[in-house]
Amino acid sequence: MVTNEYGGKNANAKFVYMFEEGKKEMKMLLGGKGANLAEMTNTGLPVPYGFTITTDVCKYYYANKKTYPKGLDEQILVAIKKMESKTGKKFGDKKNPLLVSVRSGAPASMPGMMDTILNLGINDVVVGTISKKSNNERFAWDAYRRFITMFGNVVMGIKHSKFEEIMDEIKRKYKKKLDTELSAEMLKEMVAEQKKLYKKETKEEFPTEPLKQLERSMGAVFESWNTERAVIYRRLNNVPNDWGTAVNVQEMVFGNMGNDSGTGVAFTRNPSNGENKFYGEFLMNAQGEDVVAGIRTPKPIHELGKILPKAYKQLVEIRGRLEKHYKDMQDFEFTIENQKLFMLQTRNGKRTAHAAVKVAVDMEKEKLISKEEAVLRVDPSSLDQLLHRQFDPKHKYAALTEGLPASPGAAVGKVVFTAEHAKMLAEEGEKVILVRIETSPEDIEGMHSAQGILTARGGMTSHAAVVARGMGKCCVAGADEIVVDEKAKHFTCKETVVKELDVISLNGSTGEVIVGELPTVEPTLSGDFGTLMEWADGFRKLRIRTNADTPHDAKVARGFGAEGIGLARTEHMFFEASRIKAVRKMILSKTLEERKAALAEIEPFQREDFEGIFKEMDGLPVIIRMLDPPLHEFLPKEEREINELADEMGIEAKKIRETIEALHEFNPMLGFRGCRLAIVYPEIMEMQVRAIFSAALNVQKKGIKPLPEIEVPLAGAVKEYAPLRDLVKKVSKEIGAEGKVHYKVGTMIEVPRAALTAEEFAKEAEFMSFGTNDLTQMTCGFSRDDAGKFLGPYVEKGIYLRDPFQTIDQEGVGMLMKMCVEKARSINPKINIGICGEHGGDPASVEFCHRIGMDNVSCSPYRVPIARLAAAQAVIREKILGKKNVKKK
Amino acid sequence: MVTNEYGGKNANAKFVYMFEEGKKEMKMLLGGKGANLAEMTNTGLPVPYGFTITTDVCKYYYANKKTYPKGLDEQILVAIKKMESKTGKKFGDKKNPLLVSVRSGAPASMPGMMDTILNLGINDVVVGTISKKSNNERFAWDAYRRFITMFGNVVMGIKHSKFEEIMDEIKRKYKKKLDTELSAEMLKEMVAEQKKLYKKETKEEFPTEPLKQLERSMGAVFESWNTERAVIYRRLNNVPNDWGTAVNVQEMVFGNMGNDSGTGVAFTRNPSNGENKFYGEFLMNAQGEDVVAGIRTPKPIHELGKILPKAYKQLVEIRGRLEKHYKDMQDFEFTIENQKLFMLQTRNGKRTAHAAVKVAVDMEKEKLISKEEAVLRVDPSSLDQLLHRQFDPKHKYAALTEGLPASPGAAVGKVVFTAEHAKMLAEEGEKVILVRIETSPEDIEGMHSAQGILTARGGMTSHAAVVARGMGKCCVAGADEIVVDEKAKHFTCKETVVKELDVISLNGSTGEVIVGELPTVEPTLSGDFGTLMEWADGFRKLRIRTNADTPHDAKVARGFGAEGIGLARTEHMFFEASRIKAVRKMILSKTLEERKAALAEIEPFQREDFEGIFKEMDGLPVIIRMLDPPLHEFLPKEEREINELADEMGIEAKKIRETIEALHEFNPMLGFRGCRLAIVYPEIMEMQVRAIFSAALNVQKKGIKPLPEIEVPLAGAVKEYAPLRDLVKKVSKEIGAEGKVHYKVGTMIEVPRAALTAEEFAKEAEFMSFGTNDLTQMTCGFSRDDAGKFLGPYVEKGIYLRDPFQTIDQEGVGMLMKMCVEKARSINPKINIGICGEHGGDPASVEFCHRIGMDNVSCSPYRVPIARLAAAQAVIREKILGKKNVKKK
Repeated sequence: MVTNEYGGKNANAKFVYMFEEGKKEMKMLLGGKGANLAEMTNTGLPVPYGFTITTDVCKYYYANKKTYPKGLDEQILVAIKKMESKTGKKFGDKKNPLLVSVRSGAPASMPGMMDTILNLGINDVVVGTISKKSNNERFAWDAYRRFITMFGNVVMGIKHSKFEEIMDEIKRKYKKKLDTELSAEMLKEMVAEQKKLYKKETKEEFPTEPLKQLERSMGAVFESWNTERAVIYRRLNNVPNDWGTAVNVQEMVFGNMGNDSGTGVAFTRNPSNGENKFYGEFLMNAQGEDVVAGIRTPKPIHELGKILPKAYKQLVEIRGRLEKHYKDMQDFEFTIENQKLFMLQTRNGKRTAHAAVKVAVDMEKEKLISKEEAVLRVDPSSLDQLLHRQFDPKHKYAALTEGLPASPGAAVGKVVFTAEHAKMLAEEGEKVILVRIETSPEDIEGMHSAQGILTARGGMTSHAAVVARGMGKCCVAGADEIVVDEKAKHFTCKETVVKELDVISLNGSTGEVIVGELPTVEPTLSGDFGTLMEWADGFRKLRIRTNADTPHDAKVARGFGAEGIGLARTEHMFFEASRIKAVRKMILSKTLEERKAALAEIEPFQREDFEGIFKEMDGLPVIIRMLDPPLHEFLPKEEREINELADEMGIEAKKIRETIEALHEFNPMLGFRGCRLAIVYPEIMEMQVRAIFSAALNVQKKGIKPLPEIEVPLAGAVKEYAPLRDLVKKVSKEIGAEGKVHYKVGTMIEVPRAALTAEEFAKEAEFMSFGTNDLTQMTCGFSRDDAGKFLGPYVEKGIYLRDPFQTIDQEGVGMLMKMCVEKARSINPKINIGICGEHGGDPASVEFCHRIGMDNVSCSPYRVPIARLAAAQAVIREKILGKKNVKKK
Repeated sequence: MVTNEYGGKNANAKFVYMFEEGKKEMKMLLGGKGANLAEMTNTGLPVPYGFTITTDVCKYYYANKKTYPKGLDEQILVAIKKMESKTGKKFGDKKNPLLVSVRSGAPASMPGMMDTILNLGINDVVVGTISKKSNNERFAWDAYRRFITMFGNVVMGIKHSKFEEIMDEIKRKYKKKLDTELSAEMLKEMVAEQKKLYKKETKEEFPTEPLKQLERSMGAVFESWNTERAVIYRRLNNVPNDWGTAVNVQEMVFGNMGNDSGTGVAFTRNPSNGENKFYGEFLMNAQGEDVVAGIRTPKPIHELGKILPKAYKQLVEIRGRLEKHYKDMQDFEFTIENQKLFMLQTRNGKRTAHAAVKVAVDMEKEKLISKEEAVLRVDPSSLDQLLHRQFDPKHKYAALTEGLPASPGAAVGKVVFTAEHAKMLAEEGEKVILVRIETSPEDIEGMHSAQGILTARGGMTSHAAVVARGMGKCCVAGADEIVVDEKAKHFTCKETVVKELDVISLNGSTGEVIVGELPTVEPTLSGDFGTLMEWADGFRKLRIRTNADTPHDAKVARGFGAEGIGLARTEHMFFEASRIKAVRKMILSKTLEERKAALAEIEPFQREDFEGIFKEMDGLPVIIRMLDPPLHEFLPKEEREINELADEMGIEAKKIRETIEALHEFNPMLGFRGCRLAIVYPEIMEMQVRAIFSAALNVQKKGIKPLPEIEVPLAGAVKEYAPLRDLVKKVSKEIGAEGKVHYKVGTMIEVPRAALTAEEFAKEAEFMSFGTNDLTQMTCGFSRDDAGKFLGPYVEKGIYLRDPFQTIDQEGVGMLMKMCVEKARSINPKINIGICGEHGGDPASVEFCHRIGMDNVSCSPYRVPIARLAAAQAVIREKILGKKNVKKK
């Protein structure tokens, strides 16, 4: 049995609030709309009178087999009496009938729920009264037919198309084209037909009793809380299922009463660019739905000043009052009935990232809000929009298909199917899009050369996605409708065949793939953006580093405010054309001597890599991860390449094939990689460490301050880590860096066992860095390359609220991280703990990292500003919550 | 700085114990040998007098840059004075010189450390005195040349072969063949040559001062603690590196003084079969090393009665005293010098499993030991020897190569390279050995048909190994010296080519592969074995279940005492020829209807499977795991098979290839498998559950009591588990089993996240079962199929003490398990928690499971007795430790 929280003894609970009884802080109980109507009412704004039925009723409804709590009926009746006495109108009254609107309104804004029902209270009697009173029979019957349509469709579930058929039939009959051309008589005929339809579909007469209409409408609002669309929306937006919705009942006002009536929507500032100018549009002689429907073209708000100067002046004044009161940009609806202005709704206006930044900074300067508030006003994720080249938003297009928006940006280029081809054409100055079934580390150079990458397989954290984001390069991944035929040099999507060198456009922010060339625009990083970041930096405690493998990435990231490198992967350096041959020689070596000789060829390149990075990160710490991927990733896969390599190296192709076969792994993710390579072949790591120290010594001579932090990947037992730490020390002494180069040695935490035994690691390591991609893979048992088959359904079914590769699974992986931090700090309170990998740029994950007491996060260069902002918000929110918690206690 | 525990102030610490000052409980301080020499001395047995330098000195030596603690020299001098006064002999004395032996002796028996040095104290003067006193010049010079050899080799590291060269030179010169033929004069010449060699090699004269000889020898003992061989031995046998070794200094007695002297080795009982008969052998006029060297053939001990009846009688009497005193079978060494018997060593005798069982049971009956002690006396792992067919141990052979001893037993048969071929020949009555690079689930039937399985790849827990152990079938896995060429139908190993249908033999207990047929013998399960198991059952608290997929396995396991099934894998049932086609049809289905139709074909087979298992497990619980492996495992891999399947199913081969391609995974272990299948395709699990319940209802009609426990694999979040639990309930109701069949639903714990969130699972699940194979893979980040490349080096380097797939990694995986049990019990104290997988049959893991409070373990049928014994030992040891802990407090 579900607990009946409001039944029985507690029959005196309050379920209905008149508008004057609420305030904006009561969103959880009254819903966002109800709370704001109450707030406006109490602020003295002209709001049509009404009341709100609370979200508690919705909760009760679902907890008690869709019944209502005792006392609700009485409270509604009392509320209606109040409305009647306040307005002088009465439900169903022949002289002065009360018409109301009924709207849903949840604590969080929720498209997908019930639309408005207007004109409730109308019936065969009332319609006549309205005709007389308004002296507008057509208006009255139009209101009636609209109500029947809305009630029939929204409340009773009759298909909207059936009502449209009736309308079309009447239009055909009287040879009319527009709704507005229909006369009162025609509308009467329509109402009669609609009632027939209603009876046929519902087996009952259309309800004429206003209270009955209201009761049914309320039920429909509650039902709409659990429609599929609403459930999906909540899942996608992390709105809890048990919040419930409120119901708002409000006196109708009519913008369609004639030419001194109208309706409109306005923003207190420009929601597109944030400019502090009144922004909005209106229609004369229209109801709200007409503005939305787009049949008539609305006019810009300032033109209202010419038509109804008094109402416009009042609106401008209200705009100011709203902003002063709400201290945020408002998006509001209004109706003018016979020159009289009514406010129907207000809420914080949605805005572009650009606008959000400008509004936040402006409002702080206008002293409307504090710096803390300004920092909280901008959604960190939205900053992505400001950081990548974009398609011209004015240009309309039809997408061929949609994949995952793996890495934002806009890319246009000629289709190529191999990394080599991409490189070749790029060197000739062509812009290309690399299209692959999936990418692998060998494609790195081709990805570098391409404008964008499109893959048919792989998720948001697939190789293509991760590398592209790292490069700040546009990528659409897992576009599973396309079928790539590399041999035939084309890909097909549904019926369309796209051939090699055809031009396509990729929208990395939406995942859209478009045939042909779309125009693009440069991102504009306004000065406000810099100001906001500065404020954020003043609050945050987390240090923000970047994942960067090249001097170029390091430079970009430093420009975005990175305070060091949290992850420099050394394997990408191994793939470059100039060194891959030596790398392969090393792998194919049969003896230690051969291996050392090959490594000696690679060492100068590595040294140069590190010198470049140290220069860009002068004075900032640089975590360098030792070679991580399994060796087979470096070997060629195709017959032709194998034969070429054999020729070059002067060995039999068979030998290479045997090595490839011997290195094959069933589960490479859990195979021979990471520190396991360094333990079995210490000479590889020795070479890398030597390159780091000699690079550090070299740049020091030029007055640069290198701060290398050498990182051991994939250790699960401290005994894997400690001998490698000793190896670093040994090499440092050998090369004469000991005492001269300020360096640290630390470990990645990516194997669950490492987190479980963090005390042991904390005794030996100088820093720890969570590799949350692998940690998630192992803790949840998900291969990120394969999870596409089930992770989609999992998120859809709510098994995981969000993709754990995008945002840290706080209940599982996060628990392990928290445990790890606590264990490590219990032994070594000063140990530096960070995170690298994709989660370092996810705002929710950044906030989590702050909460569990980590020292820094590291993310791809283009996400550094996002992380800076998220880290600041984490501190501010904690402060607010802390205050609340103190109050509670 | 290492703490100097014994230096400085504590100079009075005792580092030297005379034999009468010790006792057998002081093994940690005096080493096993020293403690037993002390014990025998105090028991009044005739032990040559001496003293022991403690293990503390060894510890100090390594902790303090190979120096000795203050006061040691003095204590040694005092001890030697005591020896001199007790024996009336003196170091270096011209009249009555003292000769001593020096032996290492660690707390645990440790081959690989320093051998004995005999005759220490001899020099150019003493050798003359001995000549005179013994009236045997040859004996004296033989003792001298032996000492120089031992000292030169063992203490100074001169190669033994160099001493042999001198001996050979002398023999050649004088045309002698045997050592015994050399005269005193020749031996004198040899000594002179040996001294020259010594000087050449060490740049110094041979030390003539006995105290110097002793000091050097002691140093050599301590050095031998850290030889590579010793370190490896300790790692393999889990002997801590910091225990150190003691040094025993003992008066020499000589078995080679003439024909009334001799030496021998004896066991108080027969170590091969456990019979309570005096067992041993001796040589007259010989030193101990001669017995071991095998140059002369020793005689059985009872013949000593004829030669030296008095000494023999004394020996027989000592045998009885030793057993009464030590309460275990003893292995001892003795020497008779001029008719006088001396005991040189005693220790618990090594024995076969067969003997161990008999000795333990007999001794309990003889009231020498309690039942607890009897149960502790048998090493559970050794029982393996009693449970599988074995090669005749008398037959000698040379192995072609050695792989991993993956599943014990002895197999002889003709080599085949495919599962089909194995099946075909087996049906014709042939005995075959299936040789594969590695096996996959499709090979199951072929493995069933074969006598044994040999793979070139894979570890102790590879597919071949796990399945073979499950079947109780001999398997040698990962024999990496063999190269299998399936096309050419042969395998090569070094230079040998073994062709299809050649006969080979596999020793699953040693991993040896032998060309040709070896004779085998049946295992004998004595009645004592049953008695011991009964006693064990009386102590243990863990319930022992078995992993069994077939009625046959279930029956075998029940015969071995299994109390239910802890893991019935349903996928093996899917591979049988009769149903694989329907399974493939199911996988290739494009619609739910097609899939359901294919599943309907499989269902009757599944029902029969379960009926068979329920019958064998009448009244006992049976955990049935829902389909676990990724679907691609069921699809054919070879072109030919694909084409056949396409023909059979009447679809294009291309479609099958596409499905195979679409199902391909990078890391299948972490892919689309386990409960993920059931969540995406619930109809598969519905079929399995329906088959379980209808089987249960069917067998109930026949008076059988089925107790199915339905298990959800691979859940990491409770939201994966709960809907599947609901699915079971739904099907149970649909089929009319609800209320009629007593069933449970539970979850495997194999994803680290599940263990981390065990509270959540404990709210919803009726039982939990650790799948420690996968849990280890994910917690440690080891793919068990790929770990061969680094796990070998890891165990060698001591990074992991033991293969975590063989014995639970208690510090890492075990910590997670303990946490899981605690979390689960905090919510649901009665939840049944078990373990399945390979660890369930590993004694150390069973003990661990007991310690963290689990309810049951499950292992392959042939390991059930091992688990029963290990579970009993866990309880008894806990009791003993508990008492000790109470005392400590």
